[in-house]
Amino acid sequence: MTVRLALSVNGSRLNSSIAQLAQIGKLPGGGVSRVAFTKEDLLARKLVESWMREAGMTVRIDAAGNTIGRYPGLREGAALATGSHIDTVPTGGHFDGVLGVLAGIEVVRVLRENGLRLEHAIETIVFTDEESTVIGCKAMAGNTVNNPEYYRRSDGTSIQTCLAQIGGDWSKIAEAKRHPKEIAAFVELHVEQGGVLESTGDCIGVVKGIVGQYRLGVRVTGSPNHAGSTPMHARKDALVAASQMVLAVNKLAVETPGEQVATVGYLTVWPNATNTVPGKVEFKIDLRDLSETNLEQLLAKMKLEFQAIASATQTEIEITQLLHVQPTLAAPKIQNAIVEVCQELGFSYRHLISRAGHDAQEIGRFTDMGMIFVASRGGISHAEDEYTSPEQCTQGANALLQTFLKLDRLYAAKGDRFIELQGIIKM
Amino acid sequence: MTVRLALSVNGSRLNSSIAQLAQIGKLPGGGVSRVAFTKEDLLARKLVESWMREAGMTVRIDAAGNTIGRYPGLREGAALATGSHIDTVPTGGHFDGVLGVLAGIEVVRVLRENGLRLEHAIETIVFTDEESTVIGCKAMAGNTVNNPEYYRRSDGTSIQTCLAQIGGDWSKIAEAKRHPKEIAAFVELHVEQGGVLESTGDCIGVVKGIVGQYRLGVRVTGSPNHAGSTPMHARKDALVAASQMVLAVNKLAVETPGEQVATVGYLTVWPNATNTVPGKVEFKIDLRDLSETNLEQLLAKMKLEFQAIASATQTEIEITQLLHVQPTLAAPKIQNAIVEVCQELGFSYRHLISRAGHDAQEIGRFTDMGMIFVASRGGISHAEDEYTSPEQCTQGANALLQTFLKLDRLYAAKGDRFIELQGIIKM
Repeated sequence: MTVRLALSVNGSRLNSSIAQLAQIGKLPGGGVSRVAFTKEDLLARKLVESWMREAGMTVRIDAAGNTIGRYPGLREGAALATGSHIDTVPTGGHFDGVLGVLAGIEVVRVLRENGLRLEHAIETIVFTDEESTVIGCKAMAGNTVNNPEYYRRSDGTSIQTCLAQIGGDWSKIAEAKRHPKEIAAFVELHVEQGGVLESTGDCIGVVKGIVGQYRLGVRVTGSPNHAGSTPMHARKDALVAASQMVLAVNKLAVETPGEQVATVGYLTVWPNATNTVPGKVEFKIDLRDLSETNLEQLLAKMKLEFQAIASATQTEIEITQLLHVQPTLAAPKIQNAIVEVCQELGFSYRHLISRAGHDAQEIGRFTDMGMIFVASRGGISHAEDEYTSPEQCTQGANALLQTFLKLDRLYAAKGDRFIELQGIIKM
Repeated sequence: MTVRLALSVNGSRLNSSIAQLAQIGKLPGGGVSRVAFTKEDLLARKLVESWMREAGMTVRIDAAGNTIGRYPGLREGAALATGSHIDTVPTGGHFDGVLGVLAGIEVVRVLRENGLRLEHAIETIVFTDEESTVIGCKAMAGNTVNNPEYYRRSDGTSIQTCLAQIGGDWSKIAEAKRHPKEIAAFVELHVEQGGVLESTGDCIGVVKGIVGQYRLGVRVTGSPNHAGSTPMHARKDALVAASQMVLAVNKLAVETPGEQVATVGYLTVWPNATNTVPGKVEFKIDLRDLSETNLEQLLAKMKLEFQAIASATQTEIEITQLLHVQPTLAAPKIQNAIVEVCQELGFSYRHLISRAGHDAQEIGRFTDMGMIFVASRGGISHAEDEYTSPEQCTQGANALLQTFLKLDRLYAAKGDRFIELQGIIKM
């Protein structure tokens, strides 16, 4: 035990790597713009690849352009994997994704400078284009869409060209698929991108799972009439109907027991003229929860209520499903390992739900998945002022390191028997 | 009585004038585009002026560009006036405004070809720019805004230039003001622009008054947060708050006894992104009724409810008054005269409210006002398919003619005494 806990990451080295990566795509406001497949993304990939090699990892790029660094284990067989992404939204920060990738490299640096190998190989993965198509993790889970047009960039560039630029190959995308026999468990360290840890003051978030999501488009059609000359009783006011629906969505999310969230974030009125009774309203619903069953029940209730509202307001509705992402639960075994690590390291912790998507969501579809969160100041992410302190980054990386050491035993124990910590005292 | 009722307008001449005017600014879809101060508006004004002169009227153009045709009476003093406008919305129809002007000319044509004069002079007026600034009728009521910038066209043209083009003079706008001593009564014939007469099958609408109007701008400010990671209880959702307000506006208008109408026709959401809790919503309220007291009470209740909603949703509101137009009641004496005329002519009729604004609304602020409505097919106006049948136009013009004959006695009776119909059998 002492040996294991004595190991810890080099926080200053980790934070210096984070700062160095933030120079690529640096924005005047202090943030970073490193959209996938841009010159900046390519430069950053090269830098990270060189860090992987320096840390003693072999590096390969799969057909989806995922950069996979591998630090060999004592045994052949499945690896323990970590990683995240280094691409950003057009105006992003220093930490989203980057922390998970660089902590994964730092874990290997520490093992190597201490002359240690685990029973399992360790893979640190840079997933391709997490911020838009999530093609990297999707390909690894075998869930890409079999149509290159789906992945065409908004500037017109084909996915074939994009992947070729980073060493991938669209024609071989199916070969990027991985299996539980290759990755026994995947743990991703990430900034929370929400305000729970900051508000509770806890050091580590033990993620219970990543929410599933439905996105619906709703069109309400009434009659556009003169706001002056149309008596109240003769109206088919699409905005009055839509307002009732917005409130129904909110009420369902607030009053149903559970942690679901439902939002109408987008709404437009037609013709949107002060003196015209609205003839048409279009709005979009974003619905998220960890329970697919709960999501389905909420959707069914929503549709029933919408029908009743449309009927009462003499309007017509049309509902289109725009998106459906299944929730992914974190493996209880990994959650427990993270909890034990926190207890051993004296880190306060809290179980929470990830309400944003992550690469781990796809990886969790074929193998055991877990996530470690550290706080985001003000809950802010996808913005230039995204911030997690150097100390918090170091704490997250130490939790990741210790979780790997613990999982090395837990997953090894599946097959053969090992003496505790056998792995890390060999070599 | 027989003599009076024997007089009637020449329907085919009236409808042929309407069709001829519709050639100026004719649109491919069959409608008309004759926006005030455009080449088409100027051409139409010239044509109408020539028709006035042919009908035996003297014509002058006042400082506001109003074209005033005058058919002398047997006595000096106040005239009986009628008229409306010939400018249209950018995509308008053949009848809105035009019917009132051309029926006013037709009334004079009939009198003249029968060798008749009334005791009162008759004025038929083309008011300037009814569809936008209503500067013509406003100037006649002495209610223009004393700032030329207020009247600048969206293409940048100054009101000075606009008025000069049509024979007006901004620097003398105050001289356009008229007095009850000059206009004893004003009666405007107009298409209903609503669906009441069509639905009841009545021939003539006897207008009780023109509604007053308040227009309010409301800004609701919440907090724009991530739709995934912000728990329901931590939200300040501006759209949830605004939806409650939209429904409160509707409920007040529906449930308060009376004929008021209230509409939220314009609403925008910011940032209007599916995955962001709305941070700001702006909407506009259009509120109309014939009773200013009722309007004020409704406004006061609305503001109270908005405050309560803002407080309950943790949002902030800002309310701005964008417009206030006082209601104008039609003179009971004129309403009664129109009713008697309908009874005598065998026209079915119905008292109704004008919920759209008209030139008569301003003229009614300084002298007795009345309005005669004829049906609009489908209640449609301000559109290319605006339609009132030739028969209905003729019925409206005959009601106007007979009303003038009746008012000539009624208003004359104020001062001197006259034998019934003395006016029209002289000359």
